[in-house]
Amino acid sequence: MFQRILIANRGEIALRIIRACKELGIETVAVFSEADRGAHYLELADEAYCIGPASASESYLKIDRIISAAEIGNVQAIHPGYGFLAENAHFAEVCRDSQIEFIGPSHEAMATLGDKVAARKIAQEAKVPVVPGSQGLVTSEEEALKVAAEIGYPLLIKATAGGGGKGIRPAMNEITLRAELKAASAEAEKAFKNPGVYLERYIQKPRHVEVQILADQHGNAVHLWERDCTMQRKHQKLVEEAPAPSLPQSVREDICKAAVRLVQTANYSNAGTCEFLVDEDNQFYFIEVNARIQVEHPVTEMVTGTDLIKEQIRIAAGEKLRFTQKSIPCNGAAMEIRINAEDPENDFRGCPGTITKLRLPGGPGVRFDSHVYEGYRISPYYDSMIGKLIVHRETREEVIACTLRALNEMVVEGVKTTIPLARRILEHSTFTEARGDTGFVERTW
Amino acid sequence: MFQRILIANRGEIALRIIRACKELGIETVAVFSEADRGAHYLELADEAYCIGPASASESYLKIDRIISAAEIGNVQAIHPGYGFLAENAHFAEVCRDSQIEFIGPSHEAMATLGDKVAARKIAQEAKVPVVPGSQGLVTSEEEALKVAAEIGYPLLIKATAGGGGKGIRPAMNEITLRAELKAASAEAEKAFKNPGVYLERYIQKPRHVEVQILADQHGNAVHLWERDCTMQRKHQKLVEEAPAPSLPQSVREDICKAAVRLVQTANYSNAGTCEFLVDEDNQFYFIEVNARIQVEHPVTEMVTGTDLIKEQIRIAAGEKLRFTQKSIPCNGAAMEIRINAEDPENDFRGCPGTITKLRLPGGPGVRFDSHVYEGYRISPYYDSMIGKLIVHRETREEVIACTLRALNEMVVEGVKTTIPLARRILEHSTFTEARGDTGFVERTW
Repeated sequence: MFQRILIANRGEIALRIIRACKELGIETVAVFSEADRGAHYLELADEAYCIGPASASESYLKIDRIISAAEIGNVQAIHPGYGFLAENAHFAEVCRDSQIEFIGPSHEAMATLGDKVAARKIAQEAKVPVVPGSQGLVTSEEEALKVAAEIGYPLLIKATAGGGGKGIRPAMNEITLRAELKAASAEAEKAFKNPGVYLERYIQKPRHVEVQILADQHGNAVHLWERDCTMQRKHQKLVEEAPAPSLPQSVREDICKAAVRLVQTANYSNAGTCEFLVDEDNQFYFIEVNARIQVEHPVTEMVTGTDLIKEQIRIAAGEKLRFTQKSIPCNGAAMEIRINAEDPENDFRGCPGTITKLRLPGGPGVRFDSHVYEGYRISPYYDSMIGKLIVHRETREEVIACTLRALNEMVVEGVKTTIPLARRILEHSTFTEARGDTGFVERTW
Repeated sequence: MFQRILIANRGEIALRIIRACKELGIETVAVFSEADRGAHYLELADEAYCIGPASASESYLKIDRIISAAEIGNVQAIHPGYGFLAENAHFAEVCRDSQIEFIGPSHEAMATLGDKVAARKIAQEAKVPVVPGSQGLVTSEEEALKVAAEIGYPLLIKATAGGGGKGIRPAMNEITLRAELKAASAEAEKAFKNPGVYLERYIQKPRHVEVQILADQHGNAVHLWERDCTMQRKHQKLVEEAPAPSLPQSVREDICKAAVRLVQTANYSNAGTCEFLVDEDNQFYFIEVNARIQVEHPVTEMVTGTDLIKEQIRIAAGEKLRFTQKSIPCNGAAMEIRINAEDPENDFRGCPGTITKLRLPGGPGVRFDSHVYEGYRISPYYDSMIGKLIVHRETREEVIACTLRALNEMVVEGVKTTIPLARRILEHSTFTEARGDTGFVERTW
């Protein structure tokens, strides 16, 4: 097992990884930008190095500085968290070349799955349903029109290097397809340095269901059941839960098994998430693999009784999976609410500032993952997360009641938050009856 | 089900009950003394009434004022929490006479079990082992000496109306028995308005194991497994855990079954705890029933996945138990640390004052039950609890690691706390190897 790990991240997930390391008896090296200097979670690490100014491109995204800190800190491994360099295959490769274990999949698997067209091919190879679409990239307008006629409108033009909802344009008919195709490619070139786009059928009113998987370096892979993240706003997940409500048990089992086939086919190891859309007839379609730990991983931890960060570390250290598929339970129901400093009256833009008063929720069923406290200044440079409220109870109904009481007892002053929106979602019958789709929040508020 | 409940308590447990009521959709009426005016948890209740000055005897123990508040507040039930009036049979009777449901056992069962001699008789009737001792009260020195010769020295002189470690004197031999007997009786008269004392064998190096039970008003009773509370200081529990380490499985099952027999024999309903001493040969002896919810109830909630306060309310409302004995699991391991504002350099006396800085622990496995926050003033009038750190993990080893990391990330400034003592206990091999007895903490520190 590693003696010392560097955490190439900040905020909530950096603290989450420090906590896991402490419980495993592993020392931690934190890195921080000038903007994060003095944050309480840095005191909990065994060492902490400043790696640059506030701007992420000059600090948390700066591979050479992170590798330097790792070398000075004498670590055996780097945990990238989520965001920043977590899905940067080049970074994973540099780690390996520096004899430092990257706590995540191999850079080869990451590079393959990070390319949407390549990932689709792997899914098809693994007999996992994908959204009907072009076989690979479309390179000309004629080809696009021909493929579109086959798959039917409406459809989506997607950047092969995109992800997380970025690099997607809808085309409702031939006219918009013609109009958008070049713009989409130009945008993709600009955003991802890769102009490749492909076409996909536009699944109407889908739910978002994703499957958590763990795979070791010895060919063993298991799923840890699914999460439903249908409540989204501009592709940002707001509420995540397990198990997925309104999913028939047979579909649930099929989708989980499909995820395991997919990662095994991709030769994937470590933790990962296979994301799917589920349509109104409960047909599911693979969208993408998130080759890292996800923000919403605690939901799965609660129902399965696991610690996914610890499992990531164990897998990266070469250990075999500690469970068989049959030994992984799904107990009760769990939900996560992302609480962000955002202004609902200003299109939910990030609302940085100092938290002047804070009363955290607690008590039975409640877990709160956060790095903030009274007097903490939310920086304008990074995401504006205040914390993640995670609730675990016997039934979904109880989870909703417990989450609402926890939201109601929480006090945050000094910044505007997404708490009122979360409350409105949880009180809405479309949500409580699990009839929502990924467009529900935007249509309703 | 009740629409509205009054909470005849304060602090942590008042907030705990408010939380349970909110999740059940029940309105709450809080009461408070002048010393607690302005506390945040009072804002979470639907109504709050001041019932008197800071001194508990003028407020939280003042039955007429609490009943008045209940009548003005128009509640159907009163939850007494723990401490204060929770085991006052007269209060339970007044509630019943006022047509208000008392959320606890009947006053008859409470009165019987509150009398140690009567409780011993019930235990014997239920074939539950009791510590060898006098058959009922000893009324003269001659009788005491005769009984003592039979049960053997060392022994304990115990007040029949005592409890929680109060009203107990050891007698190592005939001389000290003679010397202490009258003093013990006089003290009992003064402390409990009942001079009755009885004799019991002094069990050496015992562990403290207690069994959580739930019994409805329809004759059904179940246990929710046991807790080990061996880590004590002056009869105050410091660390509580489930399952009890180092208890053979057959003893564990026997002790749990014994507790169920006992409460059924006593015609007991609602939540309760049967306390036992376990000697070095794993023989167990009944000591007393705590006819209320206990401070350490969350430990049981974590391993069984229940909410004991909700179950108390359901039972008081006349509902039948929702589980059978077989359906109650014991998943993983859980531990509670009571964090008090006490000064270790001043014999752990209460250390009231204002909390000037507070960083609460969080993250996976951690539940924190507390009513305090930065700026909260711990009153000198009541117990000095800051909060209860509750940890739930897969194994006891992981629980200890997680509890230590949570204690290490906690920051409390402005008052001295028991955190350093808790840390020392958790790091001591006698504790980690589960070799302690109830005298361990006092002998060691």
